[in-house]
Formats: sequence, structure tokens, C-alpha cells
Amino acid sequence: MRVLLTGASGFVGRACQLALAERGVDLHLASRSRPPTVPTGATAHEVDLFDAARTEALVAEVRPTHLLHVAWVTTPGEYWTSPLNLRWLAASAELLRVFAAHGGRRVVIAGTCAEYDWARAGVCDEATTPVNPSTLYGACKDALRRVAERLSETVGISAAWGRIFFPYGPGESPRRLVASVARSLLAGQPAPCTAGTQVRDFLHVRDVGAALVALLLSEVPGAVNIGSGTPVALADVVRGVADLVGRPALVRFGTLPTPPSEPAILVAGTRRLFGEVGWRPSIPLTEGLADSVAWWRSAGR
Amino acid sequence: MRVLLTGASGFVGRACQLALAERGVDLHLASRSRPPTVPTGATAHEVDLFDAARTEALVAEVRPTHLLHVAWVTTPGEYWTSPLNLRWLAASAELLRVFAAHGGRRVVIAGTCAEYDWARAGVCDEATTPVNPSTLYGACKDALRRVAERLSETVGISAAWGRIFFPYGPGESPRRLVASVARSLLAGQPAPCTAGTQVRDFLHVRDVGAALVALLLSEVPGAVNIGSGTPVALADVVRGVADLVGRPALVRFGTLPTPPSEPAILVAGTRRLFGEVGWRPSIPLTEGLADSVAWWRSAGR
Repeated sequence: MRVLLTGASGFVGRACQLALAERGVDLHLASRSRPPTVPTGATAHEVDLFDAARTEALVAEVRPTHLLHVAWVTTPGEYWTSPLNLRWLAASAELLRVFAAHGGRRVVIAGTCAEYDWARAGVCDEATTPVNPSTLYGACKDALRRVAERLSETVGISAAWGRIFFPYGPGESPRRLVASVARSLLAGQPAPCTAGTQVRDFLHVRDVGAALVALLLSEVPGAVNIGSGTPVALADVVRGVADLVGRPALVRFGTLPTPPSEPAILVAGTRRLFGEVGWRPSIPLTEGLADSVAWWRSAGR
Repeated sequence: MRVLLTGASGFVGRACQLALAERGVDLHLASRSRPPTVPTGATAHEVDLFDAARTEALVAEVRPTHLLHVAWVTTPGEYWTSPLNLRWLAASAELLRVFAAHGGRRVVIAGTCAEYDWARAGVCDEATTPVNPSTLYGACKDALRRVAERLSETVGISAAWGRIFFPYGPGESPRRLVASVARSLLAGQPAPCTAGTQVRDFLHVRDVGAALVALLLSEVPGAVNIGSGTPVALADVVRGVADLVGRPALVRFGTLPTPPSEPAILVAGTRRLFGEVGWRPSIPLTEGLADSVAWWRSAGR
């Protein structure tokens, strides 16, 4: 088994890298710049996936049997509406095509809970919750899933799609929720927040990587939610961070407006992930938040 | 108004070229090789749309206000399942992105009746007939439509989607129905056919081009069927050709199997095309078939 991992330097990609290294596969990492760490025995390839010719040359050289495609635009505040989503759709369609053409057998692609119809979301089930992305990000991911499914039927490769909910953990962008609250409070600054009533599904990034790799190494086809299945209100996440830092009084709930597009509840149904893939999370939220706070605290990040 | 037409050398593209030239727009033609004819005043650009950098350079140079994107893999017998569909999806997503980035205002893309769920088709209505393409071709077109709609909302360009049903006419591939029957009979050879009970919607390619251009010059958004709205059995099309050639006895109905995936009825609902775009076909089927037969007869094609 020879695995090509894209986006290997990114937040989720680094976690996939670790999970793949633990499985002892022949591991090839693709990223624009060399990842900060490369597991022993793995091969790092510097490649710009927007360069279709370079991408095809890499796939032709490595000839991966398995592809875990995590690379995408993820800049907080930008990725929902960035036209770069079209570029990632294009690059991903090409990557899929050359993977299939060079003997690829099994592919897993990182999708998103933003593919679901947020007006009808709640606990999302892959088979019954309607898909209707309202953002360009969700639409491009959804479009890629649709063509990946038809390609897999047409050329006989196995394809699955990991719909990631709310990853958090060491190394996340400082603009994401857990990181931004932790950094403000650690600096002794107030943390402005929404009322925090939205219920979400948080999964530690190390578990996200492990779940995606478990899906890759399974034969389960189609869309699979990547989440904990445990609902938690954003306010409780924030309070958890504040308690760990020891500055609960600095949290300012209700000083930021809740965006009207935000659904009340967005939680992963885990029927497929737990039941069919047979994977379970290993890091409870309290433990994962402690890990995050410790990471931001260390060396005064 | 500056219009960029892609696929300008193709079967439908040549018809679009003529319709655009009649409208007196500043016309730029993009095709891999120079089109056989270029209307007076139009500019032909030789460009491989699979070359993303070259495509962006062209769009940056021309700065079209309007884009009519007709280029795609269309090789009969191959295009339904060809992995090149992924390449066209990628190239089209990139084309859309650079069109929007360089000031584009209105785009129309050629879609297909193969986007509809053929198990629930009939007279297809854009608002009510389910979309569920069963082929890689249909899935890639459908995926592009979904991202074009979200892009148009996100960056504020106007986008429509012409779902073409069954075009026919001079210049079509010799492997398409009207052409293959006409050529066999003109050569005095028998024409093997299915039973021909399938009901379809045929539109002369000149009308297809005129309809797409009418859509481009309108402000109508979203999916619009491009068809005649007139149901016709394939057997009647074949008999029409045979009568024109004068060899009805050479038609062999029922000697080819009807593929099980073929729906009984696949006809364009014309509510949007006739009512909202305000366009009507000008070439009745009998006249169009005569045109086709005359074209294949001339110079012994």
C-alpha cells in the first residue's frame, strides 16, 4: 500500500501524516513547501497542485495505490467565498483523473459539514439530511464529491468522502474559536464572543486525522461524517478554555452578533463512522481543550 | 459588449458563432485550432483551454464582458464515460474564475439533458424534474452548474445554463443518428436501427446556436432547457431521413437493441426558453432533416 497525502503541511494534513505513519504504510507527502516534520521512512514532495503538469508527473512517479486528498483553501474568514475554491475544484478534479489513470485504487477526500443544507441541519445523517451548500466553499466541495462518485463507478476505483465538522487542537489558525479565546485570555485580554448558544460537533484534530486514515484503510464508500457525535454549545467550549486558563471573568458573551446564517445545531451523525468504519474518537473534549491551551501557553504563542 | 465564445470550431460552437455575428457583437473565438470560417470583424484565438496559464492570459487580454462556454469533450461513443470530463470540469472552473476576476459580467455555459434523472424524466421542467446524472459526463456538467450558480451569487456575475437536448444538422459527427442513417442510405447501404420508440426532442443546430445566444443576451439566470418542446419518436426521425433519401426499404428497425438506460421520453419543457427568454425555434424538423440530407448528399460526404 502506497499512500499519497496532499495538504500534508496543513492543520488536518499534519494529523493525517501522523496517523498514516503509525499504520506503517509507504507514505508520500505532497505539499507546497516541505512539512516542518517528516515521519521516518516517509518521502516529502514539494509540489504546487495548481500546476497540473507537475501534479501528473508526481502521481506518475509515485504511483500511489491510495490517495488522501486534504489540500484546499482554508484561510479563516476567506475560504467560504474565495474564488480559489474554483481553483481547488479544478486542481482536485485533475488530481483524481491522474490518480485513476496511474493505477490508483482507493481515494478519500476531505469534505465538509458545509455541504449539508444548514436550514434543515441538526444531527446530520449522510443518507437523509439534504445536501444544499449555501457557500462557494461548500458548493465546490459538493461538486467534487459528485464527480468523484461517478468517476469511481465509471473507472472502478473505490472512493469515500469525509465530511469534517469542527476540528480544533494544537496548531490551528489563531483566528479559529478555541485558539482565539485561548490566546486572548492567556494575554490577559477580554475575549468577545457571541451568546454561544449554537450547538456544534468538535473533534480534536488528531482524531480527525485518525478517522480519515481509518476511512482510507476501510472499503466504506460514499460520504461519511467525521465528527465526535457529541453535541456541545459554543459557550461551553469557551467556558472550558476560560476555566483552563483561569480567566473566566474575561469572557464577554453576547458582545458579538450571531451570524443569521448559523444553524442552531450542526452535529455529526456517527452511524457510518462508528458503525461501518468501526472507528471511535479517543480524545474527550476536556482533554483536547487542555492540550490546546497548553500548546498556546508554551513558549508564549 | 465583448463576447468570448469557446469551442468555436465545434458543431454547436460554429452555430453560436453565426448567431453571435448576426447580433453585431465584438466577437472573440477561442478554439484549439483556427475555425474553418471566421466572421468578418471577429477575432480568432488559438488556445488550449487545458492550459490554465494560457487561458488566463487570453481572458486578461480580451477582457470579455460576456462568455459563452461551449467547449467540452463530445466524441460520440466516448464522451459519456471519458475521464476527460474531469479535465473539462477543471478547465471550465478555471475559465469561470478568471472570467470573473477580469471583469466578466454574464456567462452562459452549455449543459445537457443528461443532468436530469432519466429514471424520472419525460417532459423535463427546470424547476421540478429531479437532477441526478447517471454518467460521468452528466455529473461533471452538473457539478460545473452548481459551482457557477454559487460563484455568480458570491462575486455578483450573471450566470445561466443551457441544457441542450438533441441537436442535429449539417456538420454533425457521422456517428450521430441523423448523419449515420443519411450516410448509410445515401450509400445504398442498409441502416440498422433500434425499434425507435424512444421519444426525444430534436433541435436544428442553427436553432441551438440562436437559442444559446438569445439566452446569453438576456438576463435570465439559472438552468434553461434548449430544445424544441416538440416530442418525436426516433423512428419518425429515421423515416423522415429515409423518405428524403428515397430509400425507406433500407431501414432495419429493431436490428439494434435499445439500451436499457434509455428513457422512454426525454423532451424539453420550454416554459423558460419560450416564456422567459422569449425565443422560439425557426426550423421545423422536416425542413431541418432536408437540410441535413442535402448537406451529406452534396459532394458525396
